[in-house]
Amino acid sequence: MKISARNILKGKIVEITKGATTSHVRLDVNGAIVTASITNESVDELGLVKGKAAYAVVKSSDVMIGID
Amino acid sequence: MKISARNILKGKIVEITKGATTSHVRLDVNGAIVTASITNESVDELGLVKGKAAYAVVKSSDVMIGID
Amino acid sequence: MKISARNILKGKIVEITKGATTSHVRLDVNGAIVTASITNESVDELGLVKGKAAYAVVKSSDVMIGID
Amino acid sequence: MKISARNILKGKIVEITKGATTSHVRLDVNGAIVTASITNESVDELGLVKGKAAYAVVKSSDVMIGID
Amino acid sequence: MKISARNILKGKIVEITKGATTSHVRLDVNGAIVTASITNESVDELGLVKGKAAYAVVKSSDVMIGID
Amino acid sequence: MKISARNILKGKIVEITKGATTSHVRLDVNGAIVTASITNESVDELGLVKGKAAYAVVKSSDVMIGID
Repeated sequence: MKISARNILKGKIVEITKGATTSHVRLDVNGAIVTASITNESVDELGLVKGKAAYAVVKSSDVMIGID
Repeated sequence: MKISARNILKGKIVEITKGATTSHVRLDVNGAIVTASITNESVDELGLVKGKAAYAVVKSSDVMIGID
Repeated sequence: MKISARNILKGKIVEITKGATTSHVRLDVNGAIVTASITNESVDELGLVKGKAAYAVVKSSDVMIGID
Repeated sequence: MKISARNILKGKIVEITKGATTSHVRLDVNGAIVTASITNESVDELGLVKGKAAYAVVKSSDVMIGID
Repeated sequence: MKISARNILKGKIVEITKGATTSHVRLDVNGAIVTASITNESVDELGLVKGKAAYAVVKSSDVMIGID
Repeated sequence: MKISARNILKGKIVEITKGATTSHVRLDVNGAIVTASITNESVDELGLVKGKAAYAVVKSSDVMIGID
């Protein structure tokens, strides 16, 4: 599937923390760590494991801008 | 302000497209382009301009994971 | 790409309204109309046009429940 | 209350999975399964149970479009 | 409709700015200004006008916490 | 950091409920209770505790409008 989300950042899974219903998946994207909070089912269904290549996908309306 | 959002990616503004009420701000984050859809007012209030250093800020519950 | 979003609803595009930066795309999903607010660029890049088959994709953390 | 969210899909609850703080509620909407990730409190307060009629409510800015 | 969103803040509309497809609606909530970015259609369909009582509705997964 | 989010509501933390991966933080904002669903890590990293002053931060595209 090709998706309308503007932000698709390639990385590698460095950590997966499973909770009761929600997992936190951490990707290394060019040295920056990106954290995704997704359902446990998604983790299982996509077969996500540490070391696997994956993309962080974010809709542009969910991105804010910060300045120092 | 320090914020709970888990994803704060440092970059540089490479493009700003203003619409009637909504602007698209593009950041170069380590070579990856990140697009934020924010209000025109935020662009003005933060003084965002091309070339300025800025952060893309995303709550972890807004990040999905994709695989090939 | 396979994505972690839990909700991927198959439908057909019935209307596209383009604004200055943001488009509204309406899908008919089994008789229900689903509206997506996405960037104009996504519309162009995915080649979205009226009549085309498409999916409405929603992360489960963005779905609320209502009752009468 | 009448709400601005553009997507209000009528369905029936087919499953509720409660976690420590977050529940996953699955609705059958015309044969498609829609998953909502909401707080346990909402589940209790709305009296959500399997078999009950309910709506999946989604803001249009949270809907993405995918194509094959 | 009763909705699962945890945050329903009562206020009064103080300003509406219409764009090409997206409107910004500002509410005064106990002296604090809350801005909502919603579709023009929602503004029309709900008959939103300056001075009207209304609620700002936010899903708890869309609320971040900041500290000084 | 100064952030583009239009809604920054000052309040005081009145309750924190920790789950397996996700916490619910409740703020009293001028007498209204605002609930944020954030990661346990954010709670720890920001040192959030009951009684502490904090802000509820919400992007305007995540605010809906309701009417009676």
